[in-house]
Amino acid sequence: MADGVEEQLIAMRGFLDGEVAQRRLDRLASHFSEENILKEEQLSREVCAKLIRRSVNSSVLASLMAGCYPADREKIFNFFINRPDLETPVEIAKTEHRELVYMQLTALVNEGGVNAMKYLMEDPARYFTIMEAVGFIDVSLGIKFGVQFSLWGGSVVNLGTQKHRDKYLEGISNLKYPGCFAMTELHHGSNVQGIQTTATFDRMTDEFVINTPNEGATKWWIGNAAVHGKIASVFARLQLPSPDSHLDTDMGVHAFIVPLRSMEDHSVLPGIEIRDCGYKVGLNGVDNGALRFHNVRIPRDNLLNRFGDVSRDGEYSSTLPTINKRFAATLGELVGGRVGLAYGSVGVLKAACTIAIRYSLIRQQFGPPNKEEISILDYQSQQQKLMPMLSSAYAFNFATEYLVERYAEMKRTHDDDIVADVHALSAGLKAYITSYTAKSLNTCRESCGGHGYAAVNRFGSLRNDHDIFQTFEGDNTVLLQQVAGDLLKQYKRKFEGGALSVTWTYLRDSMTTYLSQTNPVVTHREGYSHLRDPRFQLDAFQYRTARLLHTAALRLRKHSKRLGSFGAWNRCLNHLLTLAESHIESVILAKFTEAIERCEDRNTRKVLNMLRDLYALDRIWKDIGTYRNQDYIAPNKAKAIHRLVEYLSFELKGVAGSLVDGFGIPDVLLRAPIGLQSGQYTEYSHHIGFE
Amino acid sequence: MADGVEEQLIAMRGFLDGEVAQRRLDRLASHFSEENILKEEQLSREVCAKLIRRSVNSSVLASLMAGCYPADREKIFNFFINRPDLETPVEIAKTEHRELVYMQLTALVNEGGVNAMKYLMEDPARYFTIMEAVGFIDVSLGIKFGVQFSLWGGSVVNLGTQKHRDKYLEGISNLKYPGCFAMTELHHGSNVQGIQTTATFDRMTDEFVINTPNEGATKWWIGNAAVHGKIASVFARLQLPSPDSHLDTDMGVHAFIVPLRSMEDHSVLPGIEIRDCGYKVGLNGVDNGALRFHNVRIPRDNLLNRFGDVSRDGEYSSTLPTINKRFAATLGELVGGRVGLAYGSVGVLKAACTIAIRYSLIRQQFGPPNKEEISILDYQSQQQKLMPMLSSAYAFNFATEYLVERYAEMKRTHDDDIVADVHALSAGLKAYITSYTAKSLNTCRESCGGHGYAAVNRFGSLRNDHDIFQTFEGDNTVLLQQVAGDLLKQYKRKFEGGALSVTWTYLRDSMTTYLSQTNPVVTHREGYSHLRDPRFQLDAFQYRTARLLHTAALRLRKHSKRLGSFGAWNRCLNHLLTLAESHIESVILAKFTEAIERCEDRNTRKVLNMLRDLYALDRIWKDIGTYRNQDYIAPNKAKAIHRLVEYLSFELKGVAGSLVDGFGIPDVLLRAPIGLQSGQYTEYSHHIGFE
Repeated sequence: MADGVEEQLIAMRGFLDGEVAQRRLDRLASHFSEENILKEEQLSREVCAKLIRRSVNSSVLASLMAGCYPADREKIFNFFINRPDLETPVEIAKTEHRELVYMQLTALVNEGGVNAMKYLMEDPARYFTIMEAVGFIDVSLGIKFGVQFSLWGGSVVNLGTQKHRDKYLEGISNLKYPGCFAMTELHHGSNVQGIQTTATFDRMTDEFVINTPNEGATKWWIGNAAVHGKIASVFARLQLPSPDSHLDTDMGVHAFIVPLRSMEDHSVLPGIEIRDCGYKVGLNGVDNGALRFHNVRIPRDNLLNRFGDVSRDGEYSSTLPTINKRFAATLGELVGGRVGLAYGSVGVLKAACTIAIRYSLIRQQFGPPNKEEISILDYQSQQQKLMPMLSSAYAFNFATEYLVERYAEMKRTHDDDIVADVHALSAGLKAYITSYTAKSLNTCRESCGGHGYAAVNRFGSLRNDHDIFQTFEGDNTVLLQQVAGDLLKQYKRKFEGGALSVTWTYLRDSMTTYLSQTNPVVTHREGYSHLRDPRFQLDAFQYRTARLLHTAALRLRKHSKRLGSFGAWNRCLNHLLTLAESHIESVILAKFTEAIERCEDRNTRKVLNMLRDLYALDRIWKDIGTYRNQDYIAPNKAKAIHRLVEYLSFELKGVAGSLVDGFGIPDVLLRAPIGLQSGQYTEYSHHIGFE
Repeated sequence: MADGVEEQLIAMRGFLDGEVAQRRLDRLASHFSEENILKEEQLSREVCAKLIRRSVNSSVLASLMAGCYPADREKIFNFFINRPDLETPVEIAKTEHRELVYMQLTALVNEGGVNAMKYLMEDPARYFTIMEAVGFIDVSLGIKFGVQFSLWGGSVVNLGTQKHRDKYLEGISNLKYPGCFAMTELHHGSNVQGIQTTATFDRMTDEFVINTPNEGATKWWIGNAAVHGKIASVFARLQLPSPDSHLDTDMGVHAFIVPLRSMEDHSVLPGIEIRDCGYKVGLNGVDNGALRFHNVRIPRDNLLNRFGDVSRDGEYSSTLPTINKRFAATLGELVGGRVGLAYGSVGVLKAACTIAIRYSLIRQQFGPPNKEEISILDYQSQQQKLMPMLSSAYAFNFATEYLVERYAEMKRTHDDDIVADVHALSAGLKAYITSYTAKSLNTCRESCGGHGYAAVNRFGSLRNDHDIFQTFEGDNTVLLQQVAGDLLKQYKRKFEGGALSVTWTYLRDSMTTYLSQTNPVVTHREGYSHLRDPRFQLDAFQYRTARLLHTAALRLRKHSKRLGSFGAWNRCLNHLLTLAESHIESVILAKFTEAIERCEDRNTRKVLNMLRDLYALDRIWKDIGTYRNQDYIAPNKAKAIHRLVEYLSFELKGVAGSLVDGFGIPDVLLRAPIGLQSGQYTEYSHHIGFE
């Protein structure tokens, strides 16, 4: 071997710090020689990096990442690119922001030709593509859009019947009826069954009478209520007068259409009190309000009666036998909101990654003595902050695409198993992804230092706007418990010999593996090809989930005897939340792996594999205590995983620029000067008025 | 034993889930019986909780936590409580916010009788008490205060000589000279040695000529520059014309006093270009600007000449031999800013904890079937989010008090060892605490759900204002490297037989321990009294630090041969950052333990011990992978630690209300309706206009 090559090989070996080096080199060599593209001397780090760079084709990536409706996305982008008058300025007061977002929405509908309700009902994937795209214009617009169509529109479509659709659908679509979704109350958010607003049937007049019985029952945070909303679907306890008593019978939570403001002059209607919820941490382009009702009368027809109806005589009827079943059906229809948030959260993560990574590539600070400064992405610490995040954005992209497909399938088939699957999946992905994105936005700001703190560079508004994604449409801590609950149901079913729903089939195998001993050979394997094998990675994720599930079931059973089921659940709550996250992580990994297999471009597959490996190994390393505690992973294997995480982060930073280009966010929408494709500093200086 | 008691004992045993239960009960029993306050039947959880509650005296805590100058804190609070006209509204535009904060500052000085420069020079502890207190009014005010006095004033006092103090000090104190600290440039923040602004001596006129040679050299983020500043201390490379060449000699970075605006009409002076850095993520009450200099001439006397001077003939003189030593001395004097930020960050954490915990106590959601809803702080998940945070706020309080003491000692003695110690300590505590607080602010918002998203409830502004604490006065990632560098210096010294500075003496012992085998008996000990023994906790922290230090030194030596010292450092960067954090955590734990020993009230000590245990064990648990990987902690011991963390969080939530009362933040300054001591919901409803 020539001296130079030897030196390079030694250099690489040094990098890997250990005995694995030789094996890794052998593996790399065989890997590349299989493909006949490499001679030995090309194994140096620089050459590897070049090779990877060569293999990344941003436009292949972009078309892979653009989703099922790239043309719709493009159309939305172009509409706003051509309307700079609608661009949200860097600093804007609440009042002006609300008006601007409303103008953006009306322009989209009236001039942009978007018929959101049609897509929502006929083609959810298209609907979510558009919702994500408008989020790039202004997150407030995405949410205003969601309030009007997913929530207010969705409640009419999903909880109402044909008469409601006939009456309201067109006005919802064309914004003649800007509306609200009035569920949350001052005292009750997560616990919807605890809401206290009442809708009492008055047989005399054939009306419902809506009332706010106490301060805690004030509807709160109602989007569109403070300024623009004319109507609301109000969630209230249906009270039916009993024929043989003076007391009303509480039939549980139902939704009612309640006009709030006059269609003519927009004045607030009698009996209705509206207050402005005021300035928020973010999303100030959305006008949230608080509502109180004082004997507000609505016709009987305004009950959204798909799951329960009241006759002229005050008789209640339903195809569903119990209050709990009706409640579950009612809330179940609203799962689309979660799908939209999970999908939109990935969009926010992509935008933040793009800005942070582009800036980290041009920002230079310090360097070797008497040499040029190096880019901050050349620092191991910066790679550690941003590269696993980039891999997660890719991973989440494929997972949420899968979720949207499953959701569309559910809407098409109404198959019970798919319904259950989509419920748990949307809860889990929404919770996991929005929590991850929220944390990442902080990391992005911090990793971009002072210039990350300029509002124009977007991290502040993205973080503030996105923050509440963790809470609305289901608090993340509550949603993860739903996932855990579903897993436990599946677990029970497994032992009762029943079928598992699709996303959970892995549990059968891994449970068997878990219940047997861990394999001591695998525990110690630390070779490069083994660690990068998706089967090892998936097995590690699924082993952890299976183990957490099994132990959770045992602990719950033990504690229930003494504490009751509620007490036992609370005693194991941290355990259950970890279980849910573990499950979701393995679903994401599985979907990422499947998406890579479907990718036809060989070079792109290679880079995606690196991203997938980093996603998986970084998470295994972050939870290494669990794996070590069970001796699933031996100490030296743990170290090898850590080294590989650092190495993959190092390798990927060489193509990080192309990988964020793959997200396909146009500069003019991204807006952040430090996040542009070129000329960042100059644009940034221009922004504050230097010539 | 009576049946009821037996049942309660079993209940407790059940809680602890394992074999440790009996030992714990024995221990608890002996512990309490020692104090003769308990009979056996009082061992139930409820009784335990009551006991703890009884032992917490908020006013004892409050006086313990109020620092050395409670009267000054009180005076500041009262001044602003009596000036509601100076209160920052929930929504305020940048321009108005800047004016309001300036009014707050001038009122404080002119009417509140605060002579900040006097305290800064004579009694730093008093200065920091006041700076922290004004941060409760508005974080922007705390920073505006810091810019004027610590930075601009500090540069004159610490880098200048008597002539500068005579000329400027009074005007700085009484705000006749609002000033700036112009160090950072567009291209250089952390790497101050890379700044490019020049100050060329002109022997003909006995002046320095200040220039901005290129776009990247634009001074950026300069506080007070956009609106209020009249003068600045400008950091620039001193250029001296060489007698025998046409080239100037670069003497390195020095600070110069440069007038920016006319003292008469506030117009910008010739040759100076000022731009507004614009809207920021937070701190919009501070007016940051960008500066460019075009042949701006200043008299030779305007060089802040404590560490280097230029004679009339253009001869350079200094008591320090090299550019690097002068640079270190110059930057070294600015360490006070870090002390202030660490101290102020704890104040922000206390405010956020107070709001989040008080709300979590009154917020109820869900509950056992057919029973009342329970408070969200009754959930294990909420305890896990907030109780370790509360324990950290207490821990940080004592650590930063210690830092302030050491800083004052340094200022008094100028002892070299103390200087080195304070430098590393202030860097480490600033980085560690501000990162922790930044993360906690997100957790607080998220854990308070929708109502945490109302701007009036403060999490948004606290987070946005505090965010940049992670970056300014030294980027956290850079500061932690300084700590790691200092540790490695100490490590080297140890092996060369020299003395260790005070904060590091533990390394000698633990290094010896580490280099021997871990003790297999201790590895398996999992008893309650052992885990709650501060000696075990500190040993675990110090073992980890010693081990990380030892392995870092070995790795650096190995990599240096091939990669050079810069490359080796970067190759080990994640390792080094972990090392620095580990060290700082052990310093915090040690200071917490010492503070508890000094506390004379026995009952208070008991509660503080619980907080200390939670602080320590939670961190050990979070890093359990490291401990497991070295078998420092056996698997069952790891589980016992986790159980104890959950149990301590559970126990502490019973007294969490009193513990946040101990922070002593008046309701009227805390402002957040959901964080008030009582009547939260009603106040919150009033805020949005309901009667």
